[in-house]
Amino acid sequence: MEFSALLTSAGINIAVCVLFLSLYSVLRKQPHNFSVYFGRRLAEEKFQRQDDYFSFERLLPTAGWIVKAYWCTEEEIRQVAGLDSVVFLRLFIFSIRIFSITSLVCIFVVLPVNYHGKEMTHNHIPADSLNVFTIVNIIEESRKLWVHCSALYVITISACILLYHEYKYISRKRLAHVTGSPPNPGHFTVLARSIPRSDNELLDDTIRNFFVNYHGSSYLSHQMIFLKGYFQKFVDRAERAYRKFVRVRLSISERNGRSNMSRCGVCGVRASSFQLYRNKFIEAKKADLTNPEVVEAQKNCPGALVFFKTRYAAVVASRVLQSSNPMLWVTDLAPEPRDVYWSNLWIPYRQIWLRKLATLAASVVFMFVFIIPVAFVQSMMQVEQLKRMFPSLRGILNKSFFARVITGYLPSVTLLLSLYTVPPLMMLFSSIEGSISRSGRKRSACLKILFFNIWNVFFVNVLSGSVLNQLNVFSRPKDMPTMLAELVPKQATFFITYVLTSGWASLCSEILQVYNLVYNFFSRFICCCHQNTEYVYSFPYHTEVPKILLFNLLGFTFSIMAPLILPFLLVYFCLGYLILNVYYPKYEMGGKLWPIMHNTIVFSLVLTQVIAIGVFTIKHSPVAGGFTILLLVGTVLFNEYCRHRFTRIFDAYSAQDVIELDRDDEQSGRMQEIHQHLLDAYSQTPPGEGSSRGGSQVPIELIMEDPAQEASESSQELCDTVQEVSEAHDHDHIVEDKAHSV
Amino acid sequence: MEFSALLTSAGINIAVCVLFLSLYSVLRKQPHNFSVYFGRRLAEEKFQRQDDYFSFERLLPTAGWIVKAYWCTEEEIRQVAGLDSVVFLRLFIFSIRIFSITSLVCIFVVLPVNYHGKEMTHNHIPADSLNVFTIVNIIEESRKLWVHCSALYVITISACILLYHEYKYISRKRLAHVTGSPPNPGHFTVLARSIPRSDNELLDDTIRNFFVNYHGSSYLSHQMIFLKGYFQKFVDRAERAYRKFVRVRLSISERNGRSNMSRCGVCGVRASSFQLYRNKFIEAKKADLTNPEVVEAQKNCPGALVFFKTRYAAVVASRVLQSSNPMLWVTDLAPEPRDVYWSNLWIPYRQIWLRKLATLAASVVFMFVFIIPVAFVQSMMQVEQLKRMFPSLRGILNKSFFARVITGYLPSVTLLLSLYTVPPLMMLFSSIEGSISRSGRKRSACLKILFFNIWNVFFVNVLSGSVLNQLNVFSRPKDMPTMLAELVPKQATFFITYVLTSGWASLCSEILQVYNLVYNFFSRFICCCHQNTEYVYSFPYHTEVPKILLFNLLGFTFSIMAPLILPFLLVYFCLGYLILNVYYPKYEMGGKLWPIMHNTIVFSLVLTQVIAIGVFTIKHSPVAGGFTILLLVGTVLFNEYCRHRFTRIFDAYSAQDVIELDRDDEQSGRMQEIHQHLLDAYSQTPPGEGSSRGGSQVPIELIMEDPAQEASESSQELCDTVQEVSEAHDHDHIVEDKAHSV
Repeated sequence: MEFSALLTSAGINIAVCVLFLSLYSVLRKQPHNFSVYFGRRLAEEKFQRQDDYFSFERLLPTAGWIVKAYWCTEEEIRQVAGLDSVVFLRLFIFSIRIFSITSLVCIFVVLPVNYHGKEMTHNHIPADSLNVFTIVNIIEESRKLWVHCSALYVITISACILLYHEYKYISRKRLAHVTGSPPNPGHFTVLARSIPRSDNELLDDTIRNFFVNYHGSSYLSHQMIFLKGYFQKFVDRAERAYRKFVRVRLSISERNGRSNMSRCGVCGVRASSFQLYRNKFIEAKKADLTNPEVVEAQKNCPGALVFFKTRYAAVVASRVLQSSNPMLWVTDLAPEPRDVYWSNLWIPYRQIWLRKLATLAASVVFMFVFIIPVAFVQSMMQVEQLKRMFPSLRGILNKSFFARVITGYLPSVTLLLSLYTVPPLMMLFSSIEGSISRSGRKRSACLKILFFNIWNVFFVNVLSGSVLNQLNVFSRPKDMPTMLAELVPKQATFFITYVLTSGWASLCSEILQVYNLVYNFFSRFICCCHQNTEYVYSFPYHTEVPKILLFNLLGFTFSIMAPLILPFLLVYFCLGYLILNVYYPKYEMGGKLWPIMHNTIVFSLVLTQVIAIGVFTIKHSPVAGGFTILLLVGTVLFNEYCRHRFTRIFDAYSAQDVIELDRDDEQSGRMQEIHQHLLDAYSQTPPGEGSSRGGSQVPIELIMEDPAQEASESSQELCDTVQEVSEAHDHDHIVEDKAHSV
Repeated sequence: MEFSALLTSAGINIAVCVLFLSLYSVLRKQPHNFSVYFGRRLAEEKFQRQDDYFSFERLLPTAGWIVKAYWCTEEEIRQVAGLDSVVFLRLFIFSIRIFSITSLVCIFVVLPVNYHGKEMTHNHIPADSLNVFTIVNIIEESRKLWVHCSALYVITISACILLYHEYKYISRKRLAHVTGSPPNPGHFTVLARSIPRSDNELLDDTIRNFFVNYHGSSYLSHQMIFLKGYFQKFVDRAERAYRKFVRVRLSISERNGRSNMSRCGVCGVRASSFQLYRNKFIEAKKADLTNPEVVEAQKNCPGALVFFKTRYAAVVASRVLQSSNPMLWVTDLAPEPRDVYWSNLWIPYRQIWLRKLATLAASVVFMFVFIIPVAFVQSMMQVEQLKRMFPSLRGILNKSFFARVITGYLPSVTLLLSLYTVPPLMMLFSSIEGSISRSGRKRSACLKILFFNIWNVFFVNVLSGSVLNQLNVFSRPKDMPTMLAELVPKQATFFITYVLTSGWASLCSEILQVYNLVYNFFSRFICCCHQNTEYVYSFPYHTEVPKILLFNLLGFTFSIMAPLILPFLLVYFCLGYLILNVYYPKYEMGGKLWPIMHNTIVFSLVLTQVIAIGVFTIKHSPVAGGFTILLLVGTVLFNEYCRHRFTRIFDAYSAQDVIELDRDDEQSGRMQEIHQHLLDAYSQTPPGEGSSRGGSQVPIELIMEDPAQEASESSQELCDTVQEVSEAHDHDHIVEDKAHSV
């Protein structure tokens, strides 16, 4: 590829980006699109209540939103979009910082060295091949390789310093988030699974007896989790009975009285009201304990949510081995209510290790099987091969138009479509894995997609050749550095165009939310349906984080090999920082994505160093290679240090923090109130996976808010309960409230 | 090698074994050797008080001890020699069981199949080459390979069943041991390290304030650990003062009044007495807190032992993250007093991860560097090569006697001597690693030696060729199965002789304890020294367990390849069961070696299967290979299941168990007593590594025994204290008692 061709490609992509961004800045001002962009950006919140008048200004693209996005403080973002958004932004900030340094070093020092690596006459730059900018242009045993080695040192050391500071900063943010946020029922609750059955005791009594016996001073109550089949009959009966009375349908206009944050997503009623109502059902059922059906239902309970009086007691119960059989009485801190992944709660604990192994194996197999569509796509590009494979198509293929479509257009569509299957499939794997929380599932999917991306985008493209060639990397690990060193610089142009198309253009199409826009248009103007305007776009961390980390990987690995990619990446990160900054969260991961990000970036650094060692080996510069090995050891030690210093902060709550929180609540007298709400917090039935229902989005702060008004609004309550109960049809499992204060 | 040659070799080794065992049965009856064999076997305990009369019977070899060893029940062994001895015996029992099954299957089914694998005329058996008994004799694509595949299934499945039952059995034993043994100070104590320094507060106060604040209801007191340098001055002064008064030397004969179990190893005085005395020192020092020297000493405290009122509280404190900085206030359950590895307690916690990485790297490097002496030994065997290397030796080498010594004898001596450096070196690595307990250090050394053995005995010998050849296994993991499959059967004869010499003969020489015998002889009859008769031989689990596991590995890998090795192994395991059965423990590992044993045996099974896959690939039997892959997956799943089901039992105490224990003690009123002794339990200064001093062998049960007599025997107390204090010179670090009841 020539330098001029690269400039052309960049020009086209810049035009596309400008077009998309202008479109966005116009579309977001149209009132009927508020629902699409609503909830996405803090800066847009004030558009929410804007009137529907028409003005010419609405049709002009403006850049005000960029300024607003830029001036959002992190604290504002955290309050609206949660800690995860902050962590996500910090990833961008880290990327911008490190690639500014890297660009400075590589563009102004390494690039000229590469360019003058061989004694050759250069024409004017645009006519040169891009290879003159890469390390390939350096002759063997050149002293100039020391420049690359030093540049690697500068990049690695500044990356480590920045990473350390980010880790420290985010740890502090996380601690502040844990201690600063309103009481979270998840902190008081432990999920106990694998409860041993007893023949002469109800499971309910078994649970109570166990926790009263061993955690008597701190045990508050518990809630059993039931499989759908058993509780469903009861719900069905209740539903039939109440459907006769209520036919109230709430109009959307009535709901916007309060800020969205303190309202339940579906119907605007306070969550506590229908919980209270549900408790009446439960009371009725409690008398039924002599009923053999109920006894049978109890026997099929996969676990229970156990509530404790203090956070510390819950932490202790979750950390300590409960029974001398580690497969019984397994306790984990429960996720917060909106984060619970209900349909996985019923999975017997003894299956989980098997599920984890199976999904791991399936993901690995899928990762390797995915080489097949790639190879198929490569084979589709040759008309002759196609003719041989499908003789019946010979007639069509002879027409030049069809041939061009089939060989030119279909391959990339096939590849793109098969790539689109990855996130849902990985999400499915992560669901099967048995995570009890949505955030855990998303984190697991994020990791899987990350591995997939690094393997199928980076390695498969670098080692592009036969499938066998790719597998050889694993069968001959010793030769990997030199093999990568030979192949990586060759792919520089491919990855530059990849950054332009998959980075810039897809980022700008992302902001338009084409899918939601079209969906909204259809539902609003064609189906005339107003129900779905509450749709809140939940940010897909599991697809975006791996993408950004992949670009980081590309940036590091190409930094000293082919520095031309760096400015394009830097632009991508800056765009990303402005575009992807604020989303309302469905649930909070508590910044747990950062350790994944940190480890991936360190992996990228190590990979860069391994490739550099390979380059120095090929170029016969063993001393530079030796220094790089030193750097590699240093990087690994740095990572180990960070792991010891920070990782546990993201895994566990410290005694000091939770005890202080408990004391604060006790001294301020809030504890009683928290306990009261705790028993209701998990009693709501969850909506299904479909994000068009917001029932699980009840901000948990609300449950703690105003307990005094609980008894009012009885007619609306009725309506909500029915809605609620009928929704239960769609869900797999239902939590049944069985609260017993000690 | 011919079959007859093998029989000759076996005959010689049997003769050596019989000789050694007869010698042992005579030597053990000689009264002056009681000290050598004393404490080794339960069956010998009654010889302890036998009179010194001479009888002819004393010179006759008898087999009664074998019968006695055989009839020891496990409960007897556990009471005398601790749980580790039981676990060690169970390893033998498992080995005997599985290799009985394997021998049956392989000798009566696989061996004839191998023997008739090729259509060939067999002479009478003794003249055949041993190769006809191995899988090499089977022709390619033979249907007979199904016999091997089925045999592998039988062996793997029975091994898994036996392993599962052993794991279950040992878990139950461990739980019974934890709940059944007398109160252990380690269960009430937490070692807190990495305590943050404060400028305006004494460290002592910092510790107390922290634990009173966050664990107020269960905190009992604490003890700070000091570096030698600071406390030493004080000890020196005390020593000078008391040396004037006491010159009492206890005669050995006075000490045998009570059973050895309830007596302190060195001097027979109850441990509590001198601890009480030491407390008086401490009281004196407490007033000194205003002294800047003491303040300075406090600043250099690397940690503290924190005592809790209940076991449960200690477990909780050790499991929960204490501070929001995971590198501060690091808490672990303390080892029991005799198990504490004092000189490692002063290591700052923040170094430990670095030390672990460094020793890991050093062990791996040593493992590979050890190939050099092996290669050197191999080169020494060729006279011509030697002449080229050392031209000055040419004169000597021409004499046939010297040449024979140098080429025939020196190589094996060199190898043996270099092998003797391994256990101490690995032990040194494990000390540097920073383990806080002796048992942890031994376990870590055991693991290191295990890896070393498997690599340097099994792999290096199987892949015997150039060093490069051996490293290729790692650089081409894909080819490993076929490479091993080709090489393993060829080494069958070598490993059979290895079992005979390194197994049988060294086991029988082990029982003689030649080193101790000679040492005892010299010290008794030449130096006339009576001090060392108290020497208790601590069993070197870290060298014996890897050896037995290596023989297990050999048994499994050769089972279907070359079944001839199996009977020799079976004899080894039976001998080992009788010979190595009872030792007095210095400290208890609580059966924690079993998970290592289990994992190694599963690794052996997997390795066997991998080699079998290689064999089936070479012999072009893909279906059998496929079935073996299934078996391999099954074995890995089995191991995962066991890991989930049992491993945590060996890591942690369950809430249920410790709470029950606490309740028992509280109800029986023993708790007060336990608390009283807890404060003293860790106050004794430890003896150095040298096992000739028994100060650290005070059985901890004793501390709990009779508190009433503490104040008596003041003169002996003085003497003990001085002995104790003077011993402190040899040790690096000293624990200073600073007990504050809450």
